[in-house]
Amino acid sequence: MADWYFEDFYEGQELSMGSKTVTEEEIIAFARQFDPQPFHIDHEAAASSHFGGVIASGWHTCSMMMRLVVDGLMTRSSAMGSPGLEKVRWIKPVRPGDTLHVSYLTQQVRASDSKPDRGVVWSKWQAVNQHGELVATIEGMGMFGRRPKEAADA
Amino acid sequence: MADWYFEDFYEGQELSMGSKTVTEEEIIAFARQFDPQPFHIDHEAAASSHFGGVIASGWHTCSMMMRLVVDGLMTRSSAMGSPGLEKVRWIKPVRPGDTLHVSYLTQQVRASDSKPDRGVVWSKWQAVNQHGELVATIEGMGMFGRRPKEAADA
Repeated sequence: MADWYFEDFYEGQELSMGSKTVTEEEIIAFARQFDPQPFHIDHEAAASSHFGGVIASGWHTCSMMMRLVVDGLMTRSSAMGSPGLEKVRWIKPVRPGDTLHVSYLTQQVRASDSKPDRGVVWSKWQAVNQHGELVATIEGMGMFGRRPKEAADA
Repeated sequence: MADWYFEDFYEGQELSMGSKTVTEEEIIAFARQFDPQPFHIDHEAAASSHFGGVIASGWHTCSMMMRLVVDGLMTRSSAMGSPGLEKVRWIKPVRPGDTLHVSYLTQQVRASDSKPDRGVVWSKWQAVNQHGELVATIEGMGMFGRRPKEAADA
């Protein structure tokens, strides 16, 4: 049994997904594998870049946000994957030692016309750092299974 | 000296970024760290899900596409990071053993009004699998430095 079904989401809902502090080691390890640009993996090159130091790959920032949303919501839900994202914004650099606080804002819900067992939830995820600065936002879609009859009656 | 400056991008340009074959080990390793939903990390749960087997996290697919674009273009360019993405679509599941062929399509270029040293390139990245199926697309923005005077004169 899941805690969260499609029926549990509503427009205007705001859920806290907890926080994650990222280390320089993690930033460099991710970037070496997926985004080996100098300002993500090389101390000196990063220091002399317009970023002034090593910053996290935007994909790493998104992946850390995903992990918080998975732990905070998805694994206790009827989540069935996602067809995609509408918008991602990398607003401020994420630097070693930064703590990202992530929230999940439900923007729209719509039951599927063609598949009666599921619905789509549009949400906006926000990451705010330890200085209260908004560093990244993700707007996307998630498919969630509908509450089974038995669970609804329970 | 970079091979690719802002001036080298033009609307309608199509660049091949090479390919990447993903293993089940890689899919599970990424998902354990960033997206531990059952259909990404658990053989049996994935087999009984609507996906019918383990599939790659969408963030993993995007990160693999990023790596190909970094190796094929970014590291030899004046890339200065990205303000964000306009659209991501996960069209077909990416499964163990799949090979992703990635292309970079330039959609629009615009020199910065406020910062004369750079411009923005809008691009669409496409990943096609070994069966010729489009599996994912990413539409986003990248900032690139302009060709320095010396390089232009060389």
